[in-house]
Amino acid sequence: MTDTTNIKAYGTTAAQAPLNAMDISRRVPTPHDVQIEIQYCGVCHSDIHTARNEWRGTIYPCVPGHEIVGKIISVGDHVSKFKVGDTVGVGCIVDSCRECQYCQEGLEQYCEPGMTGTYNSPDKFLETPTFGGYSESVVVDENYVLRIPENLDLAATAPLLCAGITTYSPLRHWNVGPGQKVGIVGIGGLGHMGIKIAKAMGAHVVAFTTSESKFAEAKRLGADEVVLSKDKEQMAAYTGKLNFILDAVSAEHDINAFISLLRVDGSLALVGAPENPLPVAAFSLIQGRKSFAGSMIGGIAETQEMLDFCGEHNIVADIEMIDIQEINEAYERMIKGDVKYRFVIDLASIKK
Amino acid sequence: MTDTTNIKAYGTTAAQAPLNAMDISRRVPTPHDVQIEIQYCGVCHSDIHTARNEWRGTIYPCVPGHEIVGKIISVGDHVSKFKVGDTVGVGCIVDSCRECQYCQEGLEQYCEPGMTGTYNSPDKFLETPTFGGYSESVVVDENYVLRIPENLDLAATAPLLCAGITTYSPLRHWNVGPGQKVGIVGIGGLGHMGIKIAKAMGAHVVAFTTSESKFAEAKRLGADEVVLSKDKEQMAAYTGKLNFILDAVSAEHDINAFISLLRVDGSLALVGAPENPLPVAAFSLIQGRKSFAGSMIGGIAETQEMLDFCGEHNIVADIEMIDIQEINEAYERMIKGDVKYRFVIDLASIKK
Repeated sequence: MTDTTNIKAYGTTAAQAPLNAMDISRRVPTPHDVQIEIQYCGVCHSDIHTARNEWRGTIYPCVPGHEIVGKIISVGDHVSKFKVGDTVGVGCIVDSCRECQYCQEGLEQYCEPGMTGTYNSPDKFLETPTFGGYSESVVVDENYVLRIPENLDLAATAPLLCAGITTYSPLRHWNVGPGQKVGIVGIGGLGHMGIKIAKAMGAHVVAFTTSESKFAEAKRLGADEVVLSKDKEQMAAYTGKLNFILDAVSAEHDINAFISLLRVDGSLALVGAPENPLPVAAFSLIQGRKSFAGSMIGGIAETQEMLDFCGEHNIVADIEMIDIQEINEAYERMIKGDVKYRFVIDLASIKK
Repeated sequence: MTDTTNIKAYGTTAAQAPLNAMDISRRVPTPHDVQIEIQYCGVCHSDIHTARNEWRGTIYPCVPGHEIVGKIISVGDHVSKFKVGDTVGVGCIVDSCRECQYCQEGLEQYCEPGMTGTYNSPDKFLETPTFGGYSESVVVDENYVLRIPENLDLAATAPLLCAGITTYSPLRHWNVGPGQKVGIVGIGGLGHMGIKIAKAMGAHVVAFTTSESKFAEAKRLGADEVVLSKDKEQMAAYTGKLNFILDAVSAEHDINAFISLLRVDGSLALVGAPENPLPVAAFSLIQGRKSFAGSMIGGIAETQEMLDFCGEHNIVADIEMIDIQEINEAYERMIKGDVKYRFVIDLASIKK
């Protein structure tokens, strides 16, 4: 039996139920664990999908949250990378098999037997599922814990742990850099990070939005150009011009219209996850050796690289801070797209 | 006015009309041209699609054929690469702008203003469209003419000019080689070349077919393993196992079933061109950073590289020879999949 302690959390017991205060058990730190007092936790769309069982497979009770930052309050005997008082982060991954080829390559997100997600995964120690960051504290193996650059605003850093790495990883993987025109589709939680990071990587950034009201915002975030994607004429001006497109839209949309904007050998990488299959025209790929690809978060080493990159370039998310008691209202606002651009929970509020 | 001479050809004057003997005009060779007496011409599915206007945009009269081999019978004054008597080939491209970035990179197939196709393209010299290889002879700028390895059977070499390069180019582009498991989907004109070439590149080749009757054939062609793609259990055994998949199926089929067989970072490249958009599940790409890509023939230099590679490895197509007078019947048989694996026209028959 693993020893546990009870802590306060916010979670839900059913797909249709709101989130409420609840007690959950965390394991007592093992020799390889650090215990983190959570200061802030970002609110990701995946939290809503999972809380409401929209992707199926949710195990209840469910405590979401995988954009965690806080302070280490205790360390196991064998912990070598961190010490009490360190400011650290935890993203979407709290463990993996560590042995498969992908884990060996630092691609823990694609772990063959399956990574242990920060919430809603089988817990290696307890019989409950893993519980996320909508809680007072978390216990995590030090190998899955990230160092936070000191110069960044801590609350605004939380969303980097998912929104940041989800956009950084494909931009890095597809070698985005100076001399390239890169499209970012959708200016929301993911897209606004994509614009900032692609710009910092040296690319010429073209933002695509369905709403003219976001033009000024996109430029403020760093876009060199902004295109109204529902305007065929504006779109046509970019035919064959983009080296790479990061598509951060989860709603259904016309992928072929964006593929046509790619240069020969260009790739469009999807990081949003539309529910239904997207119809892709074979000719639009064949005539230009183009690729329609996907990408999911990033590995632990790459997440650290992303945080260091954001530290160097002074990049954080644009956030709106909430108390944990406001989480249900925040979900409703996110569904309406009414947030610029990420809610972050101030976990001090959980002690109220 | 460009000087022309009349020659014999086989073509069609309307989408619903059969192919018939007709006279066409060829330009008198300019200083940069070679004149080729056509000995053999392969019959590609594109020939049927174009003759019948199935891709729209066919200009009539239409003379198909872009798998041409023959002997040079005259050369222009400035021709430096070839001499009378050389055995040469002409594939899908007879000209391009030569100035755009893609032409400069040897990717003439993706020429920005558009390559000049061997048939059904605007002719740079004449007011007719370009006319293909179902004819006595052809006049082509020497820069778009290929050298044929002497050791290969000439008739069986003809299909390399389209089916060969269409499969070679993506296998090369996606770095197929030793230590890799590569899937080839569909065992027809393209697929049978894909199996031979992937095998010669050193890959472990897994052929996928909807017909159990093709198992022995696939092995004879060089496949290490054969999978019945409509058998879910057989398919499941390959989940996450393939580095690359070359998909040579033009009919509608379930792309997601094949994408699931790819390893992390794997690509599936489509070289067939299904008429309707293919539904692609976002999750199947995202969970493994996979790519769904397309590829179209290959550039001139790469086509020469492919021919040299086939010379070295003694690779030709499996063919059934026909007289030009049998072309309409051959089309019907191709549509039924009743050919192993490529018809090749013996153009000696055109003089009958």
